[in-house]
Amino acid sequence: MFIEPKGFTFSSMQAGFKYQGRDDLALIVSQVPATGAGLFTRNRFKAAPVLVARDNLSGQQSAGFRAILVNAGQANACTGAKGLEDCRQTLKWSASLLGCRPEEILPASTGVIGERLFLPKWEDGLKDLVSGLGQKNSLDVAKAMMTTDTFPKLVCRVLEYSGQEVCLLGMCKGAGMICPNMATMLSFVLTDAHISASLWQEFLCRAVEMSFNRITVDGDTSTNDCVLGLANGQSKVEVTGPLCDVFYNELEELCQDLAYLIVQDAEGGTKVVRIQVCGAKDDRDAEDVARTIAHSPLVKTAIFGQDPNWGRIIAALGRCSASFSPERVRVSICGLPVFVHGQPASFQIAGGMDFDALLKPYLKRDELEIQIDLDAGQGSYALLTSDLTDEYIHINADYRS
Amino acid sequence: MFIEPKGFTFSSMQAGFKYQGRDDLALIVSQVPATGAGLFTRNRFKAAPVLVARDNLSGQQSAGFRAILVNAGQANACTGAKGLEDCRQTLKWSASLLGCRPEEILPASTGVIGERLFLPKWEDGLKDLVSGLGQKNSLDVAKAMMTTDTFPKLVCRVLEYSGQEVCLLGMCKGAGMICPNMATMLSFVLTDAHISASLWQEFLCRAVEMSFNRITVDGDTSTNDCVLGLANGQSKVEVTGPLCDVFYNELEELCQDLAYLIVQDAEGGTKVVRIQVCGAKDDRDAEDVARTIAHSPLVKTAIFGQDPNWGRIIAALGRCSASFSPERVRVSICGLPVFVHGQPASFQIAGGMDFDALLKPYLKRDELEIQIDLDAGQGSYALLTSDLTDEYIHINADYRS
Repeated sequence: MFIEPKGFTFSSMQAGFKYQGRDDLALIVSQVPATGAGLFTRNRFKAAPVLVARDNLSGQQSAGFRAILVNAGQANACTGAKGLEDCRQTLKWSASLLGCRPEEILPASTGVIGERLFLPKWEDGLKDLVSGLGQKNSLDVAKAMMTTDTFPKLVCRVLEYSGQEVCLLGMCKGAGMICPNMATMLSFVLTDAHISASLWQEFLCRAVEMSFNRITVDGDTSTNDCVLGLANGQSKVEVTGPLCDVFYNELEELCQDLAYLIVQDAEGGTKVVRIQVCGAKDDRDAEDVARTIAHSPLVKTAIFGQDPNWGRIIAALGRCSASFSPERVRVSICGLPVFVHGQPASFQIAGGMDFDALLKPYLKRDELEIQIDLDAGQGSYALLTSDLTDEYIHINADYRS
Repeated sequence: MFIEPKGFTFSSMQAGFKYQGRDDLALIVSQVPATGAGLFTRNRFKAAPVLVARDNLSGQQSAGFRAILVNAGQANACTGAKGLEDCRQTLKWSASLLGCRPEEILPASTGVIGERLFLPKWEDGLKDLVSGLGQKNSLDVAKAMMTTDTFPKLVCRVLEYSGQEVCLLGMCKGAGMICPNMATMLSFVLTDAHISASLWQEFLCRAVEMSFNRITVDGDTSTNDCVLGLANGQSKVEVTGPLCDVFYNELEELCQDLAYLIVQDAEGGTKVVRIQVCGAKDDRDAEDVARTIAHSPLVKTAIFGQDPNWGRIIAALGRCSASFSPERVRVSICGLPVFVHGQPASFQIAGGMDFDALLKPYLKRDELEIQIDLDAGQGSYALLTSDLTDEYIHINADYRS
């Protein structure tokens, strides 16, 4: 059993929205009103649950939130006014069963875009879901929100401060359509710390910027991305003074752990690739280089093939808009320089050398690093990505069938 | 046999650079000095042959060019000063055999980045190549420059004007690392028209903008992209006056035919997809939308899977930087509206409808069209792309092995 923050209960059930033989509807309830925070997709087609959760969060700033309601199968995205009505109806039913207001519940959905929720299944399912509260745990919730994920993603951190314990629990789902721009697919962070609404929102923003916003699987940004946070104060520990930094660091590391798990579970992915850019004119240039390389299908397939074909990294770098001189660039793979001063590093070794043989063992690893030094300034950026494989194609060519 | 422009001879031979059992070195020779024109990759890491061809073209504007020399196997890209020396050495040998100056020959290479040319094979090969001139034809040259291409790409147009004939012949290679930005992989356009150097360069620029620059396979821009043109005047027809428009139209259509062939031969591709954006604030916005959708791995895999999963088109559109209101957008597939006024078109049909069943037959075709109307202005753009398949992954994970 996982350590869970005090004062939260969980439930999940099999509503049969899309998947057979597994749970696909889940509920997280705080026994007391909790401080809420949230970050949402920057995609301009925002799903109904994203719009409703954002409304609810902005409507009652410091008031309390009681629950997060999540389903897998239908994303309820691009469904217009009808989709908003459907989402609000599910909250009304849940609120009536929980004895709270619909505005105190935050909804999240993931699945196929453009399909409406099938409300009759929801009405029945919600009764079982609420009556089963406490019989399931956080891992069951993490499982119920999976789509193409191959494993549930759950991270816990307990922090001791002046003899008292605070628990942080994070869960997320995501494997494809991953290029978060504000937040990733779905992630929920729960804590029993007592923290002000503004600080909770600020900390969550910063932590997301340092974690979910620095991963990419395929460059596609979801319509349903959201990170929701609930802090219910049940540990009786208040996040103020010197505890602020300690608490924030734990939160950032928790989010980074969750983000890593998404890249590790990238659809069809076999490797986690860290792209580290330094020496850029500024951080924005460094980010441009990191993202261009991370999204190059040819770089991603070479990594899948364990082929030290660094020419593709150079070709991707060459089409970036960042400022640099080609002859000053240094590219390394796992610390081994492959391209220096405008030519292959192997050219500088007397008698030549089978450079590929040196690189091969690194490329067999399931985590590897591509390092780019532009030698043009102090800017830097790091990004996690995955390789591109035939399995990604199979998953996504067959997703709806 | 193809109709070829007057006064050009061809040769190809098996030098054994990388491929076995096929030609990989080829030569096109004009019997008289021809007017040259060229467009080159905007990738900042320009291959040695790109730098040398550009130098030669800029060095003797209106003087004559005698030949194009092309090899497949080594791209001679990212090879620094040594790569430039190697390229110039191959031109020196060729010039001495042809009885012209090295500056009168335009080089082009395609293949693996970062590998040097193996000069001993070149020295022997060039002798056979020059002595075999006239024993091969333009199709042999188109074959010799293939890498992952599955078929040679050759297009011919004969235009009659006032009882006289002008012939335009174009050939190209390319299947992956295709997102031309100025020109595509390798393409050569030969004509026996008599045309001034400035008009020839201007026409070629315009035609390339309307053809090669409007295709993309994987968004990766090659280090070796180039389009070279030779016009030798042997038809005795001069391109002036009203012939200018006629000649240009033929040239543009020839380039569009060649560009289409590249997308048709996209690595692993099974479909040619035309993305047509209209109603944008301006053409630049329309291009941004077309390119974002064309590069979305999720859109490309859905098309491969013949899955009418239009939600992925919406998700890609939603992350574009173009100006538009989501509720005004109309998206159609092969003329069938799928998303109108912020919701699925199927919602507007009383009693619902199996929309997928309507779309399926279109998705089985090997050419299909995605139409986006942003309803925000007069800007438009059209782009050709391919689907993304498991075969693309296999080709590119194993390319060097």
